[in-house]
Amino acid sequence: MSLHITSAANPRLKALATLRRRRGREQTGQTLVEGYDELGLALSAGVCPQTLFLCPDLMADPAGQQDVVDTATAAGAEVITLSRAAFEKVAYREGADGFLAVVPAVLARPEDLELPAQPLLLVAEAVEKPGNLGAMLRTADAAGVDAFVAADPVTDWGNPNVVRASKGTVFSVPVAAAPTTATLQWLSAHGVRLVATTPDTDTLHTDVDLTGPVAIAVGTEKTGLTEEVLDAADVKVRIPMSGIVNSLNVATSAAIVIYEAVRQRRSGG
Amino acid sequence: MSLHITSAANPRLKALATLRRRRGREQTGQTLVEGYDELGLALSAGVCPQTLFLCPDLMADPAGQQDVVDTATAAGAEVITLSRAAFEKVAYREGADGFLAVVPAVLARPEDLELPAQPLLLVAEAVEKPGNLGAMLRTADAAGVDAFVAADPVTDWGNPNVVRASKGTVFSVPVAAAPTTATLQWLSAHGVRLVATTPDTDTLHTDVDLTGPVAIAVGTEKTGLTEEVLDAADVKVRIPMSGIVNSLNVATSAAIVIYEAVRQRRSGG
Repeated sequence: MSLHITSAANPRLKALATLRRRRGREQTGQTLVEGYDELGLALSAGVCPQTLFLCPDLMADPAGQQDVVDTATAAGAEVITLSRAAFEKVAYREGADGFLAVVPAVLARPEDLELPAQPLLLVAEAVEKPGNLGAMLRTADAAGVDAFVAADPVTDWGNPNVVRASKGTVFSVPVAAAPTTATLQWLSAHGVRLVATTPDTDTLHTDVDLTGPVAIAVGTEKTGLTEEVLDAADVKVRIPMSGIVNSLNVATSAAIVIYEAVRQRRSGG
Repeated sequence: MSLHITSAANPRLKALATLRRRRGREQTGQTLVEGYDELGLALSAGVCPQTLFLCPDLMADPAGQQDVVDTATAAGAEVITLSRAAFEKVAYREGADGFLAVVPAVLARPEDLELPAQPLLLVAEAVEKPGNLGAMLRTADAAGVDAFVAADPVTDWGNPNVVRASKGTVFSVPVAAAPTTATLQWLSAHGVRLVATTPDTDTLHTDVDLTGPVAIAVGTEKTGLTEEVLDAADVKVRIPMSGIVNSLNVATSAAIVIYEAVRQRRSGG
């Protein structure tokens, strides 16, 4: 039996508003996934939604989209249907398509991650823009990065804009968050070589060995990595740049170095 | 002597609104550059602003930012100061900083481009999002791409969001636009090998020779390159992907293949 809510003032719906704030996500351990496509990706990544809010009036193809409802229900989700007015009140993006789910937020610490023998890791320090984190998640997913650690995170993995920009890959890529110091200690304890990207070196990213256990670290576009990370790095690399701006987008930089690592690892170094 | 305008209804200011529309940019051959940083980059790329609108009230540091005013004036720009109310009416972005210039729009066709003997080119077919075009321009600038051609462009190079996302590199990278057919003919006439990126091939981008005269072509994220480009390609390549989404951001894909070309060209193939 499923619940039907028509009033936007219903307390079940009001509780959703708290999940739009980082504090609310961290206190409840929950976040929101909106949209049929994203929810499908989250489900295929093994996410078990706790509650699924549906608005048949807003769906493009209720019969054809039943697969996501069936999978979520099988995974234990409570299903609540909403009136159009109520759904549009809780939807956070334009063009709401009638699908919104409450799912467990990703709050893992590095020590929760299981690593293979020769991990390829991505570490992003203090990266702020959800769009950049999302783009890096897509790259990490595509490149088969073993884990992505946010060091001193300004933005949490449950941020709905990260979820959206990641196209659901925030649920498929093993992610964690920790202060920079703890992240560096964890890398060191696991014998992972830290490769720091910075313009202040003559070593190109294509000139170093990126096989074996490696973490590629990127900082903010404005100030780059902190001294703490640069000091701890086993090697500093830069991407060759010849233009007027001399600054690639941070997600682009990460992708270039990660795919150089992929190239070396495929060709045996 | 410089003009001072206090009324937002002034016809000089009303004319600026037409430049926010593609048709207005194409009819006048002009576009807008907003912001001290972007304008500085445009100037350093050799752009000669026709008119410079200033609002001292909104400037962070009028004395320290005088350099851009001096350079623009030396390049022949007419300077018009605006009241805060008038400036905020014509500024198109949040956090206006008191700098707005009318500059010649980039309307070049491929045949207007001057190419070196072994050019590295980027061709983006029907790419829609200004943010993606801007990100690709930053990459093209950093990687030293010789020209960037928009084939069947949905978005014009003068789009203020492209200018902004490109961080001014739309003025430093040689860019042009043309229908796909004309772009392919131009490439062929110049003996440029066309490397098409597509998921539908077994050939990896790292397995082909990207030295010599090469154009790397990317399509939309949704549908990829058209059959016309794929049929005309000398070689089709894909970026290895192992994740759940199997789709990198188009600007990320372009950056990965371009920087593989840079690697090969630096190391002599």
